[in-house]
Amino acid sequence: MDFPTWMAAIQARTESALERFLPLATTAPHRLHHAMRYATLGGGKRIRPLLCHAAGEIFAGDATRLDVPACAVELVHAYSLAHDDLPCMDNDVLRRGKPTCHVEYDEATALLVGDALQTLAFQILAENGGTPEMIALLAQASGSRGMAGGQAIDLAAVGKALTVEELEFMHIHKTGALIRAAVLLGAHVGAADDKTLFALSHFAGRIGLLFQVVDDILDAEASTATLGKTAGKDAAQNKPTYVSLLGLADAKHMAVDLRRDAKAALAPLGVRARRLIELTDYIVDRKF
Amino acid sequence: MDFPTWMAAIQARTESALERFLPLATTAPHRLHHAMRYATLGGGKRIRPLLCHAAGEIFAGDATRLDVPACAVELVHAYSLAHDDLPCMDNDVLRRGKPTCHVEYDEATALLVGDALQTLAFQILAENGGTPEMIALLAQASGSRGMAGGQAIDLAAVGKALTVEELEFMHIHKTGALIRAAVLLGAHVGAADDKTLFALSHFAGRIGLLFQVVDDILDAEASTATLGKTAGKDAAQNKPTYVSLLGLADAKHMAVDLRRDAKAALAPLGVRARRLIELTDYIVDRKF
Repeated sequence: MDFPTWMAAIQARTESALERFLPLATTAPHRLHHAMRYATLGGGKRIRPLLCHAAGEIFAGDATRLDVPACAVELVHAYSLAHDDLPCMDNDVLRRGKPTCHVEYDEATALLVGDALQTLAFQILAENGGTPEMIALLAQASGSRGMAGGQAIDLAAVGKALTVEELEFMHIHKTGALIRAAVLLGAHVGAADDKTLFALSHFAGRIGLLFQVVDDILDAEASTATLGKTAGKDAAQNKPTYVSLLGLADAKHMAVDLRRDAKAALAPLGVRARRLIELTDYIVDRKF
Repeated sequence: MDFPTWMAAIQARTESALERFLPLATTAPHRLHHAMRYATLGGGKRIRPLLCHAAGEIFAGDATRLDVPACAVELVHAYSLAHDDLPCMDNDVLRRGKPTCHVEYDEATALLVGDALQTLAFQILAENGGTPEMIALLAQASGSRGMAGGQAIDLAAVGKALTVEELEFMHIHKTGALIRAAVLLGAHVGAADDKTLFALSHFAGRIGLLFQVVDDILDAEASTATLGKTAGKDAAQNKPTYVSLLGLADAKHMAVDLRRDAKAALAPLGVRARRLIELTDYIVDRKF
């Protein structure tokens, strides 16, 4: 199976599994369930589920079993977007080409949507064969010493001059922790040995940063390439980025280095890591 | 040990366990961790941990093991308060005699505090011997078909004429589900049999409603008894309550009936249910 076909298949099965795990909009409270589905379904590249399945396949993990952590991680991601878009955070009105949750519904509903999506992530893990170890892994990645902590650091950083090290610390928490959890949870389903887990953990650290560097580059290039459109969001909000700290050329060099390091971390796994290598290239080559 | 001594001991050990489970304020991100501790420590009657320990003691459950679900439920409760107090929800400025979390810190921090406290609840269960069954039980009680769902129903009910049945449906979700989880999680630690779990579940349903009816009565009596002070918050926000639907006298009758039913549900457990019976009386006799 070539990579685009594999990717489309995982995206389709993730959509279908999320459909199944989310409460029906015909179940009370209707508006909340409607909004939870709106915030989760029908959009997104599903990078985290792709990483989860790719890591699980290395150990011949069963795809149906992999759907569970893949969806749990994606639910945590969807919750974080609903909350990040709120007026007291990033105050975003558009997400994936649609009005954000609080614009389409209202602020209180978007708050509850995020709350309930987070709960659902732990619920589907606990109800579908997730072990306490896997649940702890997802919680550590999501909480105040993971993603939510990264958000707090991000808030505190607006308008401040950060060093590259401080920026890296922020992103390791804000986006890196959940990406790492996606990879490791997939490996857990496939019963990976400790040595392989170590290699995957190193890979996940590199790819988490790579993802962010590429995001910063795309944000900056969109603003310079298409004059007259809304300027780059990060620059507008005076948020430090790899581009603002390093300049565009060095940020691109950093992406090249991270891609090489990520692939090097997978070397011990040989051809079994094929999908993870393809995903690494996909993340970098999205647009530049 | 008499009841006040027992209660003080459980409250003290809960405070101490929460102190231990919460990240230190000296751990980065400092402001977030400081705010998480502010929102959780040093206040509250700890009704849910008391119910959890009382239920666990029936089966000689180990107190240190009971601290885990007791604190997990209390962390979910604390998260819900931080979010309920936000301007887009109840817009409250005072909680337990202190400024609410978003007043003391800021809205974005209060949002992240709630998010991270919820995560921590699942994390401490998963890291300290909680089974997937216990984690699923807490998630079901907290999510869109439990507490968060009750909040959504509450939001939709403002300014509307509800029937008593609709009001009961709302409270069974909003407060009842988590109270039931506190009782059943305690019983799980103590390895209760199915027959006893059924009795405890029935008890928990009654006590959840009882708790709300008493709250409504206290809210109404405070407003009539102390003229010149802020009027009852529920009436001011035009929220339906048992008092507004039934009148004060019938709401008090309802409390009497619920107390009787709750105790009757415990009858098969005999003297072992002593603390749960004492807690039932404590909940009713708090102020009237």
